[in-house]
Amino acid sequence: MLETKLADKPRFSDRVGLLAGAGRFPFHFADAAREQGIEVVCVGVRDHVDPALRDHVDRYYEVGLGKLGGAIRCFKGEAITWAVMAGKIHKVMMFSPMPLLRMLPDWRTIRWWLARKGSDNKDDTLLLSIIREFQKDGIEFASALEVCPELLADVGTFTRRQPTESQARDIAFGWTLAREMGRLDVGQSVVVKNAAAIAIEAIEGTDRAIARAGQLCRAGGFTVVKVAKPLQDMRFDVPTVGVQTIVGMAKAGGSVLAIEAHRTILIDREETIQLANRHGIAIVSLTGEEAAKTDPMVA
Amino acid sequence: MLETKLADKPRFSDRVGLLAGAGRFPFHFADAAREQGIEVVCVGVRDHVDPALRDHVDRYYEVGLGKLGGAIRCFKGEAITWAVMAGKIHKVMMFSPMPLLRMLPDWRTIRWWLARKGSDNKDDTLLLSIIREFQKDGIEFASALEVCPELLADVGTFTRRQPTESQARDIAFGWTLAREMGRLDVGQSVVVKNAAAIAIEAIEGTDRAIARAGQLCRAGGFTVVKVAKPLQDMRFDVPTVGVQTIVGMAKAGGSVLAIEAHRTILIDREETIQLANRHGIAIVSLTGEEAAKTDPMVA
Repeated sequence: MLETKLADKPRFSDRVGLLAGAGRFPFHFADAAREQGIEVVCVGVRDHVDPALRDHVDRYYEVGLGKLGGAIRCFKGEAITWAVMAGKIHKVMMFSPMPLLRMLPDWRTIRWWLARKGSDNKDDTLLLSIIREFQKDGIEFASALEVCPELLADVGTFTRRQPTESQARDIAFGWTLAREMGRLDVGQSVVVKNAAAIAIEAIEGTDRAIARAGQLCRAGGFTVVKVAKPLQDMRFDVPTVGVQTIVGMAKAGGSVLAIEAHRTILIDREETIQLANRHGIAIVSLTGEEAAKTDPMVA
Repeated sequence: MLETKLADKPRFSDRVGLLAGAGRFPFHFADAAREQGIEVVCVGVRDHVDPALRDHVDRYYEVGLGKLGGAIRCFKGEAITWAVMAGKIHKVMMFSPMPLLRMLPDWRTIRWWLARKGSDNKDDTLLLSIIREFQKDGIEFASALEVCPELLADVGTFTRRQPTESQARDIAFGWTLAREMGRLDVGQSVVVKNAAAIAIEAIEGTDRAIARAGQLCRAGGFTVVKVAKPLQDMRFDVPTVGVQTIVGMAKAGGSVLAIEAHRTILIDREETIQLANRHGIAIVSLTGEEAAKTDPMVA
């Protein structure tokens, strides 16, 4: 049973707001939405969004990371009542020197920030709080995957190469760890080898955790496990892998990428699988139950 | 109540075997033991141990990391029945290319390695398995801290600087995370700021996790939390901090070091505290219960 079932029909049948971050996900969403006859009004987050997205949407605005009020105004001016988030936002910017000066937040952002003083800065807490701010102005968020559910990975081994028996054990070992990290809202990925944790992702993101594993495990042959949180909100922060993940793994010496079926976005599926095949990397997509079964010690 | 109470009297009153890794802990142990009239027979792990240790012990041998049989033979030849471990062993060597060729294991190590095939490579699993191998030859391990319990940090703020209110919250936030990492036997330290996880230590060790936090959190001001595992075996892998920890934090921009009282080794106490004072870093040593209380949201 899928805990994260999407609505049967998009709740936005004629127009949708797209709050877009980095990467290819906003492109896939925009193209799918317009193919379905849904008008796309995009607010791109500056320094994150690829400006080429402009040509894939009906109307395009760009705002800085600190412009919550600006983003809400754009959507309201376009009479948006339903919106989605797609693409990565780099939280690490919050920890740069003088974040307020760098982000030049608008008043709405400052008020929002002061009001949430005392709450933690885990991803879920932050993003839910942002969603509530849009709600105050009548803008609801849905999952972008409602219009492009085909981006979610189905079950199976996608590559020619299968994990070896020892790699299958590492998948099971890493899965338990990665799920715990998700429960704690620390990060989505862990890198393991021979049933030992090589790298645990926190704020640095999956790509940097993979690069680090390559430095720590010079012998290579490691397994990257990326899973959703136990209670994954499909409106934001859905685990995503793609060409970039495989490029990073090939460089660092990774052998297996294990992702969670139905709850992970596999971007540019064909290209990603081809690239993995070229580097002899296995991509395996499993449910949590199947991952536990890959452990010969348990089975 | 201390879960990790040490025995009232050392179980080695005349001579002890010292299996020594990197760092200053073996020196402190050897000096304390000899002051108490205990003869110290040392087996140093090559490429880890500081060779100057030779002058602090009664008899000194050195063996490579892959020489389990060699180490056991040294102790047996000296009629050692009780031994201790002190000092860090770098597990990352296990993941270098061709570890067997690099370590040139002796037959005992190869047999031990093959026999434990299928078990995981978490720290506890590995070290307990090594201890069992010594036991087969009549050598028992005790905690090195039985002869130098004064190395364990007592409760208190050791520095002039106290954590701010927001840092106290980060201690509580990080403590929960660090304890979970210990329960999973991933690592001992986490780095947090503003109630977000900046870096989680896995195989790279505390010093590299701190350096990474400095790169990810350029604004600095982060808190390092280092705790024991919920069921810490005081015979090995006791969390240790010292001058090196503070040097790394000063370079990376860390502000607070929070450690677990009675279960963390504070090496070179005076020097470490002086250095922290010089850099305006706070060192706080708490019990788990106190750490929870530092959270104003909870209190």
